Amino acid sequence: MAKAQVKAPTRDRILGATAALLRRKGYTGTGLKEIVKASEAPFGSVYHFFPGGKEELGAEAIRVSGRTYNALIQAFYEGASDLVTATSEFFEAGAQVLRETNYEDACPIATVALEVASTSEPMREATADVFESWISDLTGYLVGSGADPTKARKASITLFNLVEGAFILCRAWRSTEPMELAGRLATDVVREALPAKRPKSSM
Amino acid sequence: MAKAQVKAPTRDRILGATAALLRRKGYTGTGLKEIVKASEAPFGSVYHFFPGGKEELGAEAIRVSGRTYNALIQAFYEGASDLVTATSEFFEAGAQVLRETNYEDACPIATVALEVASTSEPMREATADVFESWISDLTGYLVGSGADPTKARKASITLFNLVEGAFILCRAWRSTEPMELAGRLATDVVREALPAKRPKSSM
Repeated sequence: MAKAQVKAPTRDRILGATAALLRRKGYTGTGLKEIVKASEAPFGSVYHFFPGGKEELGAEAIRVSGRTYNALIQAFYEGASDLVTATSEFFEAGAQVLRETNYEDACPIATVALEVASTSEPMREATADVFESWISDLTGYLVGSGADPTKARKASITLFNLVEGAFILCRAWRSTEPMELAGRLATDVVREALPAKRPKSSM
Repeated sequence: MAKAQVKAPTRDRILGATAALLRRKGYTGTGLKEIVKASEAPFGSVYHFFPGGKEELGAEAIRVSGRTYNALIQAFYEGASDLVTATSEFFEAGAQVLRETNYEDACPIATVALEVASTSEPMREATADVFESWISDLTGYLVGSGADPTKARKASITLFNLVEGAFILCRAWRSTEPMELAGRLATDVVREALPAKRPKSSM
């Protein structure tokens, strides 16, 4: 059939469908049958590609989802001349996406991370690795702008805390005020992590 | 039977069982049958007390769970002579509980809040109300110590953002470092929201 020729490879379709279902329904709410149906894959192919079943597939889908946020961080921070402004724009974008998606589109990992933290080690490890990679990337951008590595890592963890906490409150309240407050504090945190701009008088 | 005499009233048992299941398995993962079994209640009694079914029962259970955090905030902040120290101790206690419970015991509402934010209005409203009540209580304590009401509310929202974001990262990483960082920033935020202590020279 012609249609089959434009389909993504089966493994990618399974991962894409799983990532979408995890975002919408969480880990507990997503069944293998549903994944098979959504990915238009034969049932056996799930176990062919992911012998560990739902946990292995879910963990890999989390890693794939996580990369979209690495790309987002990159888009805002890589090559930016001013990371304070980049941070402000990053948080503003978060608020804008919330408004534009009726407060649905937030962190693709956090809900699942809380769900699995005490129930599935492979899933927990996947969320931990994804968060670590975001924070490492951000730390790298700050260090690249002259920040001390320890300060940079602490600032990056704080940015994570702020954005993830704000997502929870913004979605519950259907208001972007918490994200705006988080963004203002985040810019202060980044400003303090970066080396002070030398006043001209000291040159 | 003697046993029946020490049981809590049926409605309370249903709410308690629902709150416990929501914490452990989330909203999607908790079924009415399981609630009935865990609360040792006749099936019909759930609909007798909660004609709206799972959504109404879930929303009420969230409100009940939320009150335990109001009590926790009260325990740290009410009557405290120094709210900066109270804040530091609050975040330290959060870290300690995470360690002592193998990173299981965190916010009783956040997981469900993210789950239901875009799928159940009655449940979303319950989480929004609970978060509002925590933030209002905290704002009240800050105002009681002389903070400007607008500053106090912003600081309280920021404390929420920090603690909730840190819970996500601490549980995923099995580390209390994010909560410790959050606590240090939170104390700065509270210090800045409170009126400056007059230096002796100005008296």
